[in-house]
Amino acid sequence: MSNLIESLNWRYATKNFDSSKKLSDDQVNILAESLRLSASSFGLQPWKFIFVSNDDTKKELLAHSWHQQQVVDCSHQIVFCYNENFGEADVQRFLEDTAKTRGVDMESLAGYGDVMKGFISRMDSEQKAVWMKNQVYIALGSFLVSCAELKIDACPMEGIVQGEYDKVLGLKDGWKSVVACPVGFRAADDKYSDLAKVRFPMEEVVDIRK
Amino acid sequence: MSNLIESLNWRYATKNFDSSKKLSDDQVNILAESLRLSASSFGLQPWKFIFVSNDDTKKELLAHSWHQQQVVDCSHQIVFCYNENFGEADVQRFLEDTAKTRGVDMESLAGYGDVMKGFISRMDSEQKAVWMKNQVYIALGSFLVSCAELKIDACPMEGIVQGEYDKVLGLKDGWKSVVACPVGFRAADDKYSDLAKVRFPMEEVVDIRK
Repeated sequence: MSNLIESLNWRYATKNFDSSKKLSDDQVNILAESLRLSASSFGLQPWKFIFVSNDDTKKELLAHSWHQQQVVDCSHQIVFCYNENFGEADVQRFLEDTAKTRGVDMESLAGYGDVMKGFISRMDSEQKAVWMKNQVYIALGSFLVSCAELKIDACPMEGIVQGEYDKVLGLKDGWKSVVACPVGFRAADDKYSDLAKVRFPMEEVVDIRK
Repeated sequence: MSNLIESLNWRYATKNFDSSKKLSDDQVNILAESLRLSASSFGLQPWKFIFVSNDDTKKELLAHSWHQQQVVDCSHQIVFCYNENFGEADVQRFLEDTAKTRGVDMESLAGYGDVMKGFISRMDSEQKAVWMKNQVYIALGSFLVSCAELKIDACPMEGIVQGEYDKVLGLKDGWKSVVACPVGFRAADDKYSDLAKVRFPMEEVVDIRK
């Protein structure tokens, strides 16, 4: 059907990683850049992505990951975070970055800035957290397709104890972990890699209206 | 750096679609299949994707989309939905689909089914809605990269009045719209297509730990 669909069929939530196989620096850099390029609401990027490859740290995280062995066998455990202190100062930082990147003056962005600041300020802290987590999930979804296209294996992982992750990773200044995704290369004997993908029939999930 | 990164740099939140350019049936089918293949928690797929191409329906949706013109100028407005009635019956449906797809008997899946049913039943309706919306956002993020790889333009759109969308689309049986994404082809004169992409520097969003 297309190379994309082949890649999406190739991917699966990898259960067993080959712990001897590590991402090259080039692969790490491409994944990092793909994450940096993720889409977000207004382009505000209220996130951070932490790549963990240190064996001791991965072992510590394992204890807070429902003992999913992928956390230690993967090449890198990637932790997706948002910042609960995200606010007007970050919008301002984004506006300054926009002005610099596009070579325009700040005044020309003032109206746009007010729209964004109004949007942020109308949310209470809980609504803002939900909004940021939604953006983090956009990044996660994007990341899974990027990995598939690069033939890098991955396993999206909601089953982490976020508060404990925050401690192990030493997160501060409002940063909070949301979800994780180990990446690396499937073990030759991962029986899950050969199982047929289970998806509901097209007509149950897609409604193409004429 | 790689074709993927080129595609991700090519994409942008399209402001002006060329309303004369429509997706081919092949392109619609590939996008539908890419959505169907999206990853979700346990693979449970608590979602539906509605493709709207009818001009009258798009005009009705425009009124509930903060008058973002992309809704009518795009080829298809795609609406991402979850089902607030999602529950054990859906887990059962998924187990039956798994048994059929993989040629295994239901008994062999009983333990796995209990884990999923326990997971679902421990959430109250609000937690369940958040969980499902997170899955929908994974699909949205995946979709944006798929579109970029297919050189189809898109514009993720959180600014929709969900309840009004539900009415226009005649959603029932618990289906609720979450977010939308018009797709099609950028207009030659969309000035946003030439603007430099604004992203924070790598060191601010990615933390590669050794």
